[in-house]
Amino acid sequence: MKIVVVGGTGTIGREVVRALSSRHQVVTAGRSSGDHRVDITSAESIRGFYREVGRFDALVSAAGGGAWKPLAELGDDDFQLSLSYKLMGQVNLVRLGMELVADGGSFTLTSGVLAREPMPGSAAISLVNAGLEGFGRAAALELPRGARVNVVSPPWVDETLRAMGMQGVLGMPAERVALAYVESVEGRRTGEVIDARVFS
Amino acid sequence: MKIVVVGGTGTIGREVVRALSSRHQVVTAGRSSGDHRVDITSAESIRGFYREVGRFDALVSAAGGGAWKPLAELGDDDFQLSLSYKLMGQVNLVRLGMELVADGGSFTLTSGVLAREPMPGSAAISLVNAGLEGFGRAAALELPRGARVNVVSPPWVDETLRAMGMQGVLGMPAERVALAYVESVEGRRTGEVIDARVFS
Repeated sequence: MKIVVVGGTGTIGREVVRALSSRHQVVTAGRSSGDHRVDITSAESIRGFYREVGRFDALVSAAGGGAWKPLAELGDDDFQLSLSYKLMGQVNLVRLGMELVADGGSFTLTSGVLAREPMPGSAAISLVNAGLEGFGRAAALELPRGARVNVVSPPWVDETLRAMGMQGVLGMPAERVALAYVESVEGRRTGEVIDARVFS
Repeated sequence: MKIVVVGGTGTIGREVVRALSSRHQVVTAGRSSGDHRVDITSAESIRGFYREVGRFDALVSAAGGGAWKPLAELGDDDFQLSLSYKLMGQVNLVRLGMELVADGGSFTLTSGVLAREPMPGSAAISLVNAGLEGFGRAAALELPRGARVNVVSPPWVDETLRAMGMQGVLGMPAERVALAYVESVEGRRTGEVIDARVFS
């Protein structure tokens, strides 16, 4: 399969690339690294990216961020960034790529555990993650030619916790999280939220 | 209690007003009707509305719409409308009202069954409804002074189905749906998605 991994040099993305590369042709894309450049906050950038990439069998998105701040400090701009980056960025990868995906091919997006298990500071990110899951369930009903879409929900990842200086807090290694993406790409699921913890 | 019902003249809103009026002081708000005018797509309009309303014990929102269209026909504008109206409109009622709500008071927002049970055509609305539920769960952790927030998820409502010409399709009467809002306002729940079908 020809598989495109957007965010392919990020913490999770690079493990997804590693896991898929032995069996598939993997091309990576990112804002500032990878085989292709794409800024997913811009529909125009996504359209240009898809013109370069052409047809593909699977697209994995492990891209997009949101604002982590106390609710009382979250401003209009924080919500705007979160909606246009992690939420609509990934939604637009599906909307604008659905005519290019192969028959029976797939999209795999990334939400996160905060969709259903929030923490103080996560209001914008919980909104975004849950919204992505709602979109994935619905879009699966309308993709053409048997194409599929799933949303992987990763827990806190070891490497991220370490980078944040959270010593002694146990997360899930990105290498194990990647197995949820492999399941979405190589399996037959569609319209599902895949809790990556199942693969730990 | 002083209870503000935004969308208080809509199909669900007027039944919420009716159910609460015998026991509480209810004021209504809407884009073009009610005791106060508010356009929830505008943060500025919400700020002006709250300056008029002042302190309150509970705010119920049964307001906001989204785009219902096949996925392939949903345009950037359709998503933009859905995000700024039903999603951020209701989120902003909480964000901009959280300093005005009474100690132990509450916010009750409206999502809908399509969050978890999508249909073809619901991609934008499923996203919005699920996003609201994620926001509600998270915001509940950070409201000040014991204030609460819940999201009511109504099923298809009889009156709406009849207005759409869907003869013979059975929904839930708005009068019963209103009971979920009463439970949110008068009960002790917080951070919950209240499935209105439980009250049928």
